[in-house]
Amino acid sequence: MQRLEVREPVPYPILVGEGVLKEVPPLAGPAALLFDRRVEGFAQEVAKALGVRHLLGLPGGEAAKSLEVYGKVLSWLAEKGLPRNATLLVVGGGTLTDLGGFVAATYLRGVAYLAFPTTTLAIVDASVGGKTGINLPEGKNLVGAFHFPQGVYAELRALKTLPLPTFKEGLVEAFKHGLIAGDEALLKVEDLTPQSPRLEAFLARAVAVKVRVTEEDPLEKGKRRLLNLGHTLGHALEAQTRHALPHGMAVAYGLLYAALLGRALGGEDLLPPVRRLLLWLSPPPLPPLAFEDLLPYLLRDKKKVSESLHWVVPLAPGRLVVRPLPEGLLREAFAAWREELKGLGLLR
Amino acid sequence: MQRLEVREPVPYPILVGEGVLKEVPPLAGPAALLFDRRVEGFAQEVAKALGVRHLLGLPGGEAAKSLEVYGKVLSWLAEKGLPRNATLLVVGGGTLTDLGGFVAATYLRGVAYLAFPTTTLAIVDASVGGKTGINLPEGKNLVGAFHFPQGVYAELRALKTLPLPTFKEGLVEAFKHGLIAGDEALLKVEDLTPQSPRLEAFLARAVAVKVRVTEEDPLEKGKRRLLNLGHTLGHALEAQTRHALPHGMAVAYGLLYAALLGRALGGEDLLPPVRRLLLWLSPPPLPPLAFEDLLPYLLRDKKKVSESLHWVVPLAPGRLVVRPLPEGLLREAFAAWREELKGLGLLR
Repeated sequence: MQRLEVREPVPYPILVGEGVLKEVPPLAGPAALLFDRRVEGFAQEVAKALGVRHLLGLPGGEAAKSLEVYGKVLSWLAEKGLPRNATLLVVGGGTLTDLGGFVAATYLRGVAYLAFPTTTLAIVDASVGGKTGINLPEGKNLVGAFHFPQGVYAELRALKTLPLPTFKEGLVEAFKHGLIAGDEALLKVEDLTPQSPRLEAFLARAVAVKVRVTEEDPLEKGKRRLLNLGHTLGHALEAQTRHALPHGMAVAYGLLYAALLGRALGGEDLLPPVRRLLLWLSPPPLPPLAFEDLLPYLLRDKKKVSESLHWVVPLAPGRLVVRPLPEGLLREAFAAWREELKGLGLLR
Repeated sequence: MQRLEVREPVPYPILVGEGVLKEVPPLAGPAALLFDRRVEGFAQEVAKALGVRHLLGLPGGEAAKSLEVYGKVLSWLAEKGLPRNATLLVVGGGTLTDLGGFVAATYLRGVAYLAFPTTTLAIVDASVGGKTGINLPEGKNLVGAFHFPQGVYAELRALKTLPLPTFKEGLVEAFKHGLIAGDEALLKVEDLTPQSPRLEAFLARAVAVKVRVTEEDPLEKGKRRLLNLGHTLGHALEAQTRHALPHGMAVAYGLLYAALLGRALGGEDLLPPVRRLLLWLSPPPLPPLAFEDLLPYLLRDKKKVSESLHWVVPLAPGRLVVRPLPEGLLREAFAAWREELKGLGLLR
């Protein structure tokens, strides 16, 4: 079992391994548990281990992150009379921890919560860093709060029932953390399965990168932007495909584009590991997109941050720049990206 | 014009007087303005003075504090493309500042906001202290966040269109602040009208008490509980009458009960100023309630804080105790309270 201690802005532990439930301290007051219905068995196990009697099953996926589900969960907590010193336990993937964290941030102006992430994505990304939130019809993650859990308990046995594509998807973010931190071990994901003995150490290293970056910039004012590596084009692809393309896969395509931008800026050739990532991941091939097809979505991203669009570009593992780029360079890299996709058999 | 500086947990100014709009610093980025439709004229004036083009009018009163209106406002901000560095301006009474503050706390995980309270209640109470939130069908203020404005601008000209009962209602909280802080000037509200020359100084003193108490306890862990003076019975009366009784009037009835509890505990006789307050306020008379009629609502309050019900009892202006009380004493004070109401002509 691996244990990380987050210090800033509030201290809490992150445990990764098998048997982590035994490490959860006894709950101080009443408790309620939200879970993704797809992991009901594990949720029942958590509830039993910690003596929680109020359980609410929710649909997983983006459907959970709506204002309707948010209101439903709040009303459920109020009906059960959960008081201000209660603890909310959240068992599920990133959508559940995002929703559950936001509920915990706002019910009675804030109650404690514990996260039990059950996907690789939730372990490596969503449950670390305090970002919680829900979607609006107008866009993803437009509403939320920074609210930190009192502990994150990643039970790796829960990953064994995860569909393999979902397992792989989360590791794209780990690969991204490897590029950001220059941790080469995180760039080798191809041999990982839910059974790999090195999975525990691998996930803990990936989590450690996010912990470090978010500790330095808990409220996303500067360094945290590095975590957007691969996400600018990734978000545009998600939006353009109306979220038919899963997040991790979109980011993997975005990482390929970022590697090409890095090469254009005179950086090291990062294409070999990114190609291996894509071949292992085998995402659904993309339709033949033109740069113009993605432009509106890139501009919308820009509008939201109210500054000229900054790209996170890797020049080498551990060496990144964040800067606006001229349109000519973006177009050339886009053409090179399409060529790469063709070569990898990822263009329809 | 009176200017107060809040220091904790974040610094911001509170201005009370005529002509405060001139004191608002220029807005750094884009802005949007929410307003209570009943003060549209003043809202237009604010928008014009500060160059705000996006305005949204909302119904005032508790109707504004629903999950539906919350979602509607968030979607409106997203449609207008308001970015993270935007400022939300909120013009209205306490319900508008509660709702608007919560929107500001959670839209894009938090944007800046400025409060322009247009009722005495909002000036003295709601717009100070960082509490924001909305209601659920299960109860009031069950969802929210602590989020502090960048400034509170109380333009007293806006009070001149306020219905007199609403004007008076807000001053009940000022009276309460007088009891808490031992500021005798705040116990004389009977001669105040929207035209009183001493209104500006009076309101600033009342605000100063809340600023002091909330600075010492911004997240409501201890001293802030003093602000619940009169509210325990007040909330029960509100709930029992299904909110037909306005908040300030319910609190005034609660203050009478608190004064009787104080007398029973050997405190100073605080009945004369509370009686004067009630005669001036002339709230709707109460139906002939029994102690048992209110008990379920008192117990529900207890459940929420998950501890035995603590009463805030004034022993003298500026000298209060917060403690559980034996049921016998509560019943005796209740009988005395009914006798007082009869004498004041406030029992149907």
